[in-house]
Amino acid sequence: MKTQQELFIKMVLDAWNIHIKRTDDLFNSLSDEQLMREASPGRNRGIYLLGHLTAIHDKMLPLLGLGESLYPELYELFVTSPDKARTDIPSISDLKLSWKKVNSALTEHFSRITPDEWFRKHNAVSEDDFAREPHRNKLNLIINRTNHLANHLGQLIFLKPPNRQD
Amino acid sequence: MKTQQELFIKMVLDAWNIHIKRTDDLFNSLSDEQLMREASPGRNRGIYLLGHLTAIHDKMLPLLGLGESLYPELYELFVTSPDKARTDIPSISDLKLSWKKVNSALTEHFSRITPDEWFRKHNAVSEDDFAREPHRNKLNLIINRTNHLANHLGQLIFLKPPNRQD
Repeated sequence: MKTQQELFIKMVLDAWNIHIKRTDDLFNSLSDEQLMREASPGRNRGIYLLGHLTAIHDKMLPLLGLGESLYPELYELFVTSPDKARTDIPSISDLKLSWKKVNSALTEHFSRITPDEWFRKHNAVSEDDFAREPHRNKLNLIINRTNHLANHLGQLIFLKPPNRQD
Repeated sequence: MKTQQELFIKMVLDAWNIHIKRTDDLFNSLSDEQLMREASPGRNRGIYLLGHLTAIHDKMLPLLGLGESLYPELYELFVTSPDKARTDIPSISDLKLSWKKVNSALTEHFSRITPDEWFRKHNAVSEDDFAREPHRNKLNLIINRTNHLANHLGQLIFLKPPNRQD
């Protein structure tokens, strides 16, 4: 029987894992040609969203105190810079590999974080702020990043042929 | 000082509330003409997503044991039926009003749900399944519906002029 604390953590990680799985499945189902298209006219291309999600997830490693980012160069290319501002971006196959490696590293670390550790501060909040706002903990970062992923997944779905309403 | 249980509930409700606020602000900033457009060629129109989110949130009232749906007719129009299959849909102004009323009703009910009640089963899971899967509680439904909202919010952003990358 799980404690209520273990239950919260499972609820949050289950939502994270299902969105990673859905996004993985979508990236695997999209051709390079489809990933070079814009999700909607004038919007981010699939390749940019792939790089953006990889960079944001990679940044979770230092934010959660799990180590250094694996691909720190992606942040400037896919977070600081808007799409089409940079021509020196990695290939889709390299980005897909980085996406996989970053998420695997997170999954592996998550399995070793203790329940109490999930409720400690992450590294984007100061000690003082955390004392006032204890909800800004590591588990809350997963809730927020899952919503961020869901937001972009809703856009990436538009890269598939509109044979049905998505 | 909040208990960890109260803290977790706050984390989940804060994420819900911020996504409701962002979606409200977006719907308020979009003209009727913009809401009649497709989020991407061949995809759902803004008016459909407005009705869809309203119907899904309205259904949360019975699922959470908070009462009957306020606009049960919206479910068949915006969940069971795809976009453009039905011509007898409400006006944008009526849908915007329903969207507001449904979310206000949820907010008002949420303020009166006790911490323990959030961890009881919702009405889309059987007693037997809940005994095996206690994470399928009322709070988990909020986590899932927040991700659903974030997913469609990412699409609705495309109804704004692409003056910047979204």
